[in-house]
Amino acid sequence: MNFSSKLIQDAVEQFSRLPGIGRKSALRLTLHLLKLDKNEVRDFGEAFINLRENINYCKECHNISDVDICELCSNPNREEHTVCVVEDIRDVMAIENTHQFKGKYHVLGGVISPLDGIGPDDVTIDSLVEKVAQGKIKEIILALSTTMEGDTTNFYIFKRLKDYNVKMTVIARGISVGDELEYADELTLGRSIVNRTPYENSLA
Amino acid sequence: MNFSSKLIQDAVEQFSRLPGIGRKSALRLTLHLLKLDKNEVRDFGEAFINLRENINYCKECHNISDVDICELCSNPNREEHTVCVVEDIRDVMAIENTHQFKGKYHVLGGVISPLDGIGPDDVTIDSLVEKVAQGKIKEIILALSTTMEGDTTNFYIFKRLKDYNVKMTVIARGISVGDELEYADELTLGRSIVNRTPYENSLA
Repeated sequence: MNFSSKLIQDAVEQFSRLPGIGRKSALRLTLHLLKLDKNEVRDFGEAFINLRENINYCKECHNISDVDICELCSNPNREEHTVCVVEDIRDVMAIENTHQFKGKYHVLGGVISPLDGIGPDDVTIDSLVEKVAQGKIKEIILALSTTMEGDTTNFYIFKRLKDYNVKMTVIARGISVGDELEYADELTLGRSIVNRTPYENSLA
Repeated sequence: MNFSSKLIQDAVEQFSRLPGIGRKSALRLTLHLLKLDKNEVRDFGEAFINLRENINYCKECHNISDVDICELCSNPNREEHTVCVVEDIRDVMAIENTHQFKGKYHVLGGVISPLDGIGPDDVTIDSLVEKVAQGKIKEIILALSTTMEGDTTNFYIFKRLKDYNVKMTVIARGISVGDELEYADELTLGRSIVNRTPYENSLA
């Protein structure tokens, strides 16, 4: 695209760098910003700069947090002996929304992905092993996505922790609530049969 | 959504203000920015602030331009007597891409839309009338979208200019090249018959 303005071009290029935003959408967003007040656009741009400059991670669970120990980790009502391992803050938020988990979290900050150059040292697995080594944790729940990378990461964590006295579980895979069997993929349907649960449990 | 960080919340809220970006996408984009270098994020945020602070419009055609008179307006090879009226810079870019127009543009900066509080004074119609009043322009091509707002704006411009000695045309409405008749809407198909053109013209 040939822009009549370097300023427009810069803004469009910056928007285009975001995942899922093409040049046409980027131009649409840029023109939207031009219709806002200068102060509003200043707030817009500065929100991201502030975020990146001042972002902090909880020293315990590594989730994004504005304080050294996040609300979840400092909450005395959360069970310390059950730790749910997730990829990022979105998963913490999703699980918290279910109100089904009362333990603590451990945020990896990513999954092992050799193709993207992300190795075990780029995620917080060492810190997880240290926590387990202290002996207080009884169960580690692996709640990563069922992708190649998620499975690889699960297996790596399993290998690192298998000599410790800690129970390791993965979240259940099965048919989504409300889904019809005929549209489920074979792998999921197969797993849902192998890992069938007592009928009484489904009444909860 | 309940965020563990005010910084994240601010960034997500800013992204969510953009058209077409919901809270989930906003969080995804925010987490993407966290993975970039501080300098990259600074460039990202500043591109929009710079844009809004320093944006300039061509004094002739009102298109976005970094100089007082834009490239198109200062180009002596463009015909001065034909002016194409468009809504914004995207339309200029789209028409320029066709290489079918050698005249000048007049960018309204919007269309009349009472529901959005945009009246005739909020777009550059007065400036268009002034240009026409100087007598150099022979033809005004109206190239606005065929929406209620576009049609209203066309009609308003027509009323303002009808006492001047200037030919007014609208871009052709018809079946898109490559489209099948049976899927065209009735209005478009009807217009394409009423405004049929000599066969020889279609060979160009």
